[in-house]
Amino acid sequence: MISPTLQEIREAAQRIKPHAHRTPVMTNENLNERVGAKVFLKCENFQKVGAFKFRGACNAVFSLTDEEAARGVCTHSSGNHAQALALAARMRGIAAHIVMPENAPQVKKDAVAGYGGKISYCESTLQAREATLRRVMESTGAAFIHPYDDERVIVGQGTAALELLADVPDLDVVIAPVGGGGLLSGTSIAATETKRGIRVIGAEPEMADDAFRSLQAGKVFPSDNPKTIADGLLTSLSDRTFSIIQSRVEQIVTVSEQGIVDAMKFIWERAKIVIEPSSAVAVAVLWEKKIDLTGLKVGVILSGGNVDLGKLPWESRQGDR
Amino acid sequence: MISPTLQEIREAAQRIKPHAHRTPVMTNENLNERVGAKVFLKCENFQKVGAFKFRGACNAVFSLTDEEAARGVCTHSSGNHAQALALAARMRGIAAHIVMPENAPQVKKDAVAGYGGKISYCESTLQAREATLRRVMESTGAAFIHPYDDERVIVGQGTAALELLADVPDLDVVIAPVGGGGLLSGTSIAATETKRGIRVIGAEPEMADDAFRSLQAGKVFPSDNPKTIADGLLTSLSDRTFSIIQSRVEQIVTVSEQGIVDAMKFIWERAKIVIEPSSAVAVAVLWEKKIDLTGLKVGVILSGGNVDLGKLPWESRQGDR
Repeated sequence: MISPTLQEIREAAQRIKPHAHRTPVMTNENLNERVGAKVFLKCENFQKVGAFKFRGACNAVFSLTDEEAARGVCTHSSGNHAQALALAARMRGIAAHIVMPENAPQVKKDAVAGYGGKISYCESTLQAREATLRRVMESTGAAFIHPYDDERVIVGQGTAALELLADVPDLDVVIAPVGGGGLLSGTSIAATETKRGIRVIGAEPEMADDAFRSLQAGKVFPSDNPKTIADGLLTSLSDRTFSIIQSRVEQIVTVSEQGIVDAMKFIWERAKIVIEPSSAVAVAVLWEKKIDLTGLKVGVILSGGNVDLGKLPWESRQGDR
Repeated sequence: MISPTLQEIREAAQRIKPHAHRTPVMTNENLNERVGAKVFLKCENFQKVGAFKFRGACNAVFSLTDEEAARGVCTHSSGNHAQALALAARMRGIAAHIVMPENAPQVKKDAVAGYGGKISYCESTLQAREATLRRVMESTGAAFIHPYDDERVIVGQGTAALELLADVPDLDVVIAPVGGGGLLSGTSIAATETKRGIRVIGAEPEMADDAFRSLQAGKVFPSDNPKTIADGLLTSLSDRTFSIIQSRVEQIVTVSEQGIVDAMKFIWERAKIVIEPSSAVAVAVLWEKKIDLTGLKVGVILSGGNVDLGKLPWESRQGDR
């Protein structure tokens, strides 16, 4: 399979520049001390819609010809990609059709609708989702933008690592979380084509370790009813993302649920930023020290900051007023 | 009373530069839409020890002569000032003696001890605190650094507004929370001496409105057993801070407890940063729209981000793992 190129990521960066935030890179001395490395946090929690997903969706939407764009875009997602596609479409002044299961959380439905997305509800099965998406495509002619199995999306996600390496050129390692593999694919291309010898590591929950097992086996394993608080990482690799990751990523490191929660809480408490569990998965690789990164300069892509503040993964009782 | 000068704030900025963070100024479109103004958030939650207090403590500590410094510093505080003074003292390689009530939360004792502060416990009365502080000063000769009734502290706190106006010179208004008045005093000097006609507004909880009442009455009212979630704003003005605020601050605006919580939650959810209730008090002035700031460029000093994640001011039940 032919891999997307660094040049395409650079073009994506130019394409999304008027629409996306160039997010800051943060450092935190407490974190550095705790993990024994120099950590550079690429803050995609500050990205539009609160997640890196806006980069890929935005690049895909603005890659369409005017004729294609006029018919709108569509996808299936109840997560950050749905919101990202809705917002990118609104910025281009076109329709976004989002297929979501009826039982998706109300807050997610509201978020997509808030960005102007047109929601088509389906039952919560793979068959229902695909049938509904097909109907939407047939009736509207909208272009399907897959959450990760799409080169325009992959190169869009790669722009985060491109910016990170522009800000911190001498990184030794880049860590990104892996679910469907769009972010990790784009990150690995941007990093390895920008800096010779840089190490790219994927971060995955032990409880959803299909990418880890896929790399071990040399073929795609679907995720098998995964249960993790990192709800952005439930999806499986596609052949496309597997192929890129296999050739460019050093290894996938899995982390425990407790490690994810502890790393997340530490970042909130010490770095004073709100990150979602999927972001904490990447931090947890450093936190749990399963591999030795002592003394290295490590870039970490914080994927996003969308959490339900009424349902945190730790005990909180309401304080006195 | 002679007011500190802009020149002294500039000198403080030079003095603390090697030790303190130059914190970023953040903007958020959701917030701007919600409040109808262009808001610039000066992120002192990203400051050392997680609060603006480090600026004043650091300036005071590094203002001491070598001879004075050799005898250490001391203060009474169980809050951010205690941590700030302990860290600043450690940076200068001198002792910090912190008088704290025995019943202070363990997390605050640990934080001060973690920065190397030497804690002297006292009973939780004003008399016991002052007696203990006096004993510490007599036995060590340490220099007393008051949390706010100290010119070195006031000009240190003013460096935040100095940086804010350097980054956003065309602000119409600056809002800062007011407890003892150190931050608001320093902010008001920095702002009004940097930009002619700029409006400086103090933000205070309705439930702890002693500064509001003091300005109305033209004399200092002590706070009267205040109950607010903004636990950084429980103290009363001193004659020194009252005098500065009276001459330079346009007005104090009081905000409701619900407004503080709503503003705090909105900033966490939308801006993806962790701020403490005292910071949210300043945001709540915009949030509750008690005064009309429509269309203006408004700087807000976010005082800090130190919160107990296990005791948030809203309902949160632990999510499923």
